[in-house]
Amino acid sequence: MKSFNEISEIITSEIEKLDWTMQPSGLYEPIAYTLSMGGKRIRPALTLMACNLYTDEIQQAIAPALGIEVFHNFTLLHDDIMDRADIRRGRPTVHKRWDDNTAILSGDVMQIAAYQLIAQTPVDCLKPVLDLFSATAREICEGQQYDVDFEAIDNVSADDYLEMIRLKTAVLLACALKAGALIGGANTADANELYNFGINLGLAFQLKDDLLDVYGDEATFGKKIGGDILCNKKTYLLIHALKLAKGADFEELSNCLKKSYEQPDMKIAQVTKMYNKLKVKKICEDKMMFYFDMAVANLEKLQLDTTKKHELKKLAEKLLSRND
Amino acid sequence: MKSFNEISEIITSEIEKLDWTMQPSGLYEPIAYTLSMGGKRIRPALTLMACNLYTDEIQQAIAPALGIEVFHNFTLLHDDIMDRADIRRGRPTVHKRWDDNTAILSGDVMQIAAYQLIAQTPVDCLKPVLDLFSATAREICEGQQYDVDFEAIDNVSADDYLEMIRLKTAVLLACALKAGALIGGANTADANELYNFGINLGLAFQLKDDLLDVYGDEATFGKKIGGDILCNKKTYLLIHALKLAKGADFEELSNCLKKSYEQPDMKIAQVTKMYNKLKVKKICEDKMMFYFDMAVANLEKLQLDTTKKHELKKLAEKLLSRND
Repeated sequence: MKSFNEISEIITSEIEKLDWTMQPSGLYEPIAYTLSMGGKRIRPALTLMACNLYTDEIQQAIAPALGIEVFHNFTLLHDDIMDRADIRRGRPTVHKRWDDNTAILSGDVMQIAAYQLIAQTPVDCLKPVLDLFSATAREICEGQQYDVDFEAIDNVSADDYLEMIRLKTAVLLACALKAGALIGGANTADANELYNFGINLGLAFQLKDDLLDVYGDEATFGKKIGGDILCNKKTYLLIHALKLAKGADFEELSNCLKKSYEQPDMKIAQVTKMYNKLKVKKICEDKMMFYFDMAVANLEKLQLDTTKKHELKKLAEKLLSRND
Repeated sequence: MKSFNEISEIITSEIEKLDWTMQPSGLYEPIAYTLSMGGKRIRPALTLMACNLYTDEIQQAIAPALGIEVFHNFTLLHDDIMDRADIRRGRPTVHKRWDDNTAILSGDVMQIAAYQLIAQTPVDCLKPVLDLFSATAREICEGQQYDVDFEAIDNVSADDYLEMIRLKTAVLLACALKAGALIGGANTADANELYNFGINLGLAFQLKDDLLDVYGDEATFGKKIGGDILCNKKTYLLIHALKLAKGADFEELSNCLKKSYEQPDMKIAQVTKMYNKLKVKKICEDKMMFYFDMAVANLEKLQLDTTKKHELKKLAEKLLSRND
């Protein structure tokens, strides 16, 4: 069994080997740029780790693992146009550095390139991996659409929100794991258990992201603290705060959301103060731990030696105690 | 052998059967809308016709044929955003009827849906059809990028232009034919010959489109005559006109391209007059017929009875004598 760090090194080196020097450069340079921005590369690592649970021959899972990472970066590229986000990982986004049309078309090619990598899955499990990938890709678009729709809806429930982040974030982690398991030769029960592990890990991971946006450290988080608060994003924290706030508290919180602030930091401070008063941080942390425990239970059900599952459990712990 | 009309009826009915009623509707309604706009459905018809050359079992080629048509409509949807085109086939485009974000995301899902249909190719030829489709899809994006790039370049040559339309238009016709042939059980030589037939037909088809834009009849053409002239699009006609015009003619033509007209019809009339004087219509028609003859030669090389090839030849003739 390789460690997460060993797997990460393989992924980093394989992503660097991908060739984007072809013509027309106006189409391919933004792809190289996007992939050079880095990121945690968790999804392709999950594919190789899941594969590695069942075989030492993880080479065969590298292309599909990269396909999943290229697809993930494609969704960020198109989401950044839709969200008018100018900065990602400290650098200008593609639509900002080039323009919207470039970002649309380069994204389209990235999606095709992702499929070309997925198509390199060993032929005996090409069809199930391809179908899993396409179904997942569609769900991610559905999640993005719900995310957009929720901006205009006042009464988004916690369950609506959890379903949205399941689609937008969790299913790709789940797909990455199940694809790796299938390629590694896992039985159906284990492959599905790893899928569910990915769903629970993904939900916990996104709740951690919501927490970091408010309670993270700007220097290590890599983006501005309070971004979700400034755009009134209906996160798990805000949904619960709106539900719990009564009387004067509700008035104050509603006012914070409606008011236009000259100093954005003031809005962040006021909303955070209300979150603290209403103790929604703990509600979010508890839910995160609920999903973490579910994920660990999924791991326990795998028909494998306990030692083999250790790396995945360690990774889950690391992701949920992270500061960035 | 089924006729083109019989095949067209199958395609129309199968496209209507595709279900886009799922949630979130904001994502799927624009797809249903796009596909309800109609169009000639030539590409899926070519897949079924090519398959039908080798087998009566054309049912197995229907899903991939639809995948190619869904992909084609996806490219139109995203191209319309990039070109800021407000009208297609007499109706508002998706980004106009909804908005840019909707058009981007619905387009992304269409591309995935196209792959889901391609993935229904019989498993014994799934891998070659999938690889052919992905390579083609990338070439189409490259063609679109060259088309955008050419807007800012003065010295686009006739060869540059032909390569651009090969990528943007011809390869998908070629892919449609080759995929159908592979599914039908054609040998490699025939499958490649049909691919080349598609390339030559596609080039002739696009040159016909260039001609119709200037010399077509508005009522039957379905879009405004002179659209290419108004946006100074470097078509085969304009590239040759700029090459052939000398002295005062060159000055006049260059002026027409630079000047801003209060009455657009005046610009169309003046450029068309210059095209007539320089006889570029005949140059374009000759090139179109050159590719048509090449396409017919491709058909002749197929290892099949002459009667079987008749429907494809008739279709090629019909496409190149069309008024819309």
